[in-house]
Amino acid sequence: MADYHQMWKDLGMDVDNHDVLCNVLPGAIGDVFLSQENRPEKMDYFDFVLAEVHGVRPAELVDFREKGGKVFGTFCAYVPDEVIFAAGGIATGLCAGSQFWVPGGEKYLPANTCPLIKAMLGARFDRTCPFYRLADVYIGETTCDGKKKAYEILGTDVPMHVMDLPQMKRDKDVKKWAEEIRELKALVEKETGNEVTPENLAENIKKINAKRSALKRLYDLRKEKNIPISGTDTLLISQIAYYDDPERFTQMVNTLCDELDQRVKDGVSVFPAGTKRILVTGTPMAIPNWKMHNLIETSGAAVVCEETCTGTRYFENNVDESGKTVDEMIDKIAERYMGINCACFTPNTGRFDDVVRLAKEYDVDGVIDVTLKFCQTYDIEGATLEKRLQEENIPVLRIETDYTDADAQQLKTRIEAFCEVIGE
Amino acid sequence: MADYHQMWKDLGMDVDNHDVLCNVLPGAIGDVFLSQENRPEKMDYFDFVLAEVHGVRPAELVDFREKGGKVFGTFCAYVPDEVIFAAGGIATGLCAGSQFWVPGGEKYLPANTCPLIKAMLGARFDRTCPFYRLADVYIGETTCDGKKKAYEILGTDVPMHVMDLPQMKRDKDVKKWAEEIRELKALVEKETGNEVTPENLAENIKKINAKRSALKRLYDLRKEKNIPISGTDTLLISQIAYYDDPERFTQMVNTLCDELDQRVKDGVSVFPAGTKRILVTGTPMAIPNWKMHNLIETSGAAVVCEETCTGTRYFENNVDESGKTVDEMIDKIAERYMGINCACFTPNTGRFDDVVRLAKEYDVDGVIDVTLKFCQTYDIEGATLEKRLQEENIPVLRIETDYTDADAQQLKTRIEAFCEVIGE
Repeated sequence: MADYHQMWKDLGMDVDNHDVLCNVLPGAIGDVFLSQENRPEKMDYFDFVLAEVHGVRPAELVDFREKGGKVFGTFCAYVPDEVIFAAGGIATGLCAGSQFWVPGGEKYLPANTCPLIKAMLGARFDRTCPFYRLADVYIGETTCDGKKKAYEILGTDVPMHVMDLPQMKRDKDVKKWAEEIRELKALVEKETGNEVTPENLAENIKKINAKRSALKRLYDLRKEKNIPISGTDTLLISQIAYYDDPERFTQMVNTLCDELDQRVKDGVSVFPAGTKRILVTGTPMAIPNWKMHNLIETSGAAVVCEETCTGTRYFENNVDESGKTVDEMIDKIAERYMGINCACFTPNTGRFDDVVRLAKEYDVDGVIDVTLKFCQTYDIEGATLEKRLQEENIPVLRIETDYTDADAQQLKTRIEAFCEVIGE
Repeated sequence: MADYHQMWKDLGMDVDNHDVLCNVLPGAIGDVFLSQENRPEKMDYFDFVLAEVHGVRPAELVDFREKGGKVFGTFCAYVPDEVIFAAGGIATGLCAGSQFWVPGGEKYLPANTCPLIKAMLGARFDRTCPFYRLADVYIGETTCDGKKKAYEILGTDVPMHVMDLPQMKRDKDVKKWAEEIRELKALVEKETGNEVTPENLAENIKKINAKRSALKRLYDLRKEKNIPISGTDTLLISQIAYYDDPERFTQMVNTLCDELDQRVKDGVSVFPAGTKRILVTGTPMAIPNWKMHNLIETSGAAVVCEETCTGTRYFENNVDESGKTVDEMIDKIAERYMGINCACFTPNTGRFDDVVRLAKEYDVDGVIDVTLKFCQTYDIEGATLEKRLQEENIPVLRIETDYTDADAQQLKTRIEAFCEVIGE
């Protein structure tokens, strides 16, 4: 691994504290990823990105910024990268999935806040994540009370632009979201000094559509009876999707899919025949949160689909490419993003329909609904989802957890018991 | 007290369980209200309303509905009663402030939900509150994640209309709120069969403005050096404001204020000279939640102002009466309600300004910021409010609590310690 200490120092990071995180990463990668059997060879790219997660891509962003480029940090699948890339900016994810950052966040937020939000603030204020140092502007959204109010605190330390996501999905709400996207466009134009044109926007709609299509291709391969890739590996890819250069990422996912196509032809599976197939739904799993997938897949089951923001919500449905003017394109972008079914909406029955549909498409034996502690929207909605799945005779296990390992053994016992009774 | 058991039975209530609540009420009223010294005589009306809180007003609503009237249940200071009354409907508050209803709500909601929201669902599903039985339609709003998602569950049992409150306060958001009020107008017109006209809307804008003005008059009297009424009594009045007939309520508050005017002239106070003056800010205190006021005022301090939804947020700023058409009037109504500074907005610096302004206007010695457990918006914002108050040299005590008495003694100790050091 290359030495990025000087870069981290130049970024104003707390390098000593950050080393603590760096030192545990190789072990975690070994335990969670490298210990898996018969992994696709083309995972090597994603393994490399992960091994140097705070190095390679940040170095590219440093380089980009040195040339005058602007980086926009995002926290949510609703923020349309298309507009940012069209103006010559780079969008990068800022969600935070490690317990390492949680105590830092608790200095600013009540303990009763979800770990993802606490980790966000910890990563920023503890200066232990290069991405948080590299984003010139943070783009927030009003998806939940915790994030909405936490952005106010982030805004004391970094330029913060918040998009007001409507809480319903009526026609006028889609129009309202289009207005918010127009405001985002104005912001990125101002920050980058570049105009968003019909040409560059059309090009970037295509680019991000291609990225989503590659992920769709990858996920479709998991529908096979012989599952050619683990859920743990796929989750990593979904997580990297938020950070990586979109064109390179698309290419790498498609290259991996070529290998997986061959596996399907050869009847190769990474799981023994008869392994129980699980759909995971619920709250996002930000990098490096692989806790649930690791627990499930070391309990003798396979995760074949994630109905999460680090899963189908991120890539399902492309932007309609028929728009001619920037305004038309933004309307189409708004329509696509408002099609995401997050628990922040009321009602959010579309998500229940999605989970039922995906459960059938991926031929799952059961659904595990994972909610991060203190995430009220998913937690409350979970009871209704459970009822709906019971009506459809789809077994469901509800889990509330955080980023610590304190509950790991107990969860493993529950998952094993669940997997034993389903799909019989 | 009259016997309302037949009415409660007719309303489909669980009368036996409800009796448990009725049986503790007289003791609570005695302990919290009647034990106070030198209360204004004209509190007798509010004492009467309280003593028969599930009888007198519900009986009026029963009568109103028998004549074909429609009752609209509301949960929030943002829902404009003006529109409901204009169409000949009656608006009634449905917030719930007793631990009695919490276990019932926990059957439907995660334990990590604020007690107010849990009590809402308990009151409905346990059938132990007549107001929840008498509302033909519930009007919700997207003010917080907990309520927003809980309304989905209420909606399985009762007609539910949710208004999408914008999360920011730009000009376009005020316009968006006006649109939501137009949808509310269409709903109440459909339900009542009555049209909202410039005449009846103007009349009801005046009526509700008069109610707010009466409350303003009452609160202004608390600015006096000799405080003519306790915070506990005033809180009760603010709570009853959500339930009572607006014209009668206005008249009764004004009658009380006449008595308080005389007290001011006579230099009469309900507190000994030198009693520390406290401003309470934070989450709403739904009836019968008098916990904090009772603790503060039995700790030797006086609550002189509430910057809460059961306080200044409810009555400050009247609707501009210059609108001529229904559309103009609705725009003015939207402007007035969007002036309320709830923690659901981002940013919500207006609230900090309000607290500082009110602290000066009411000449307080300190601020107690009270947040209901698991209320993320107020809890997260509380840290920023605290900083702002420290900058202004206004002492502040932050308290997180629920509806139980478990923490009462500990809170009393903290409040006494706080009151000892402030205003020296």
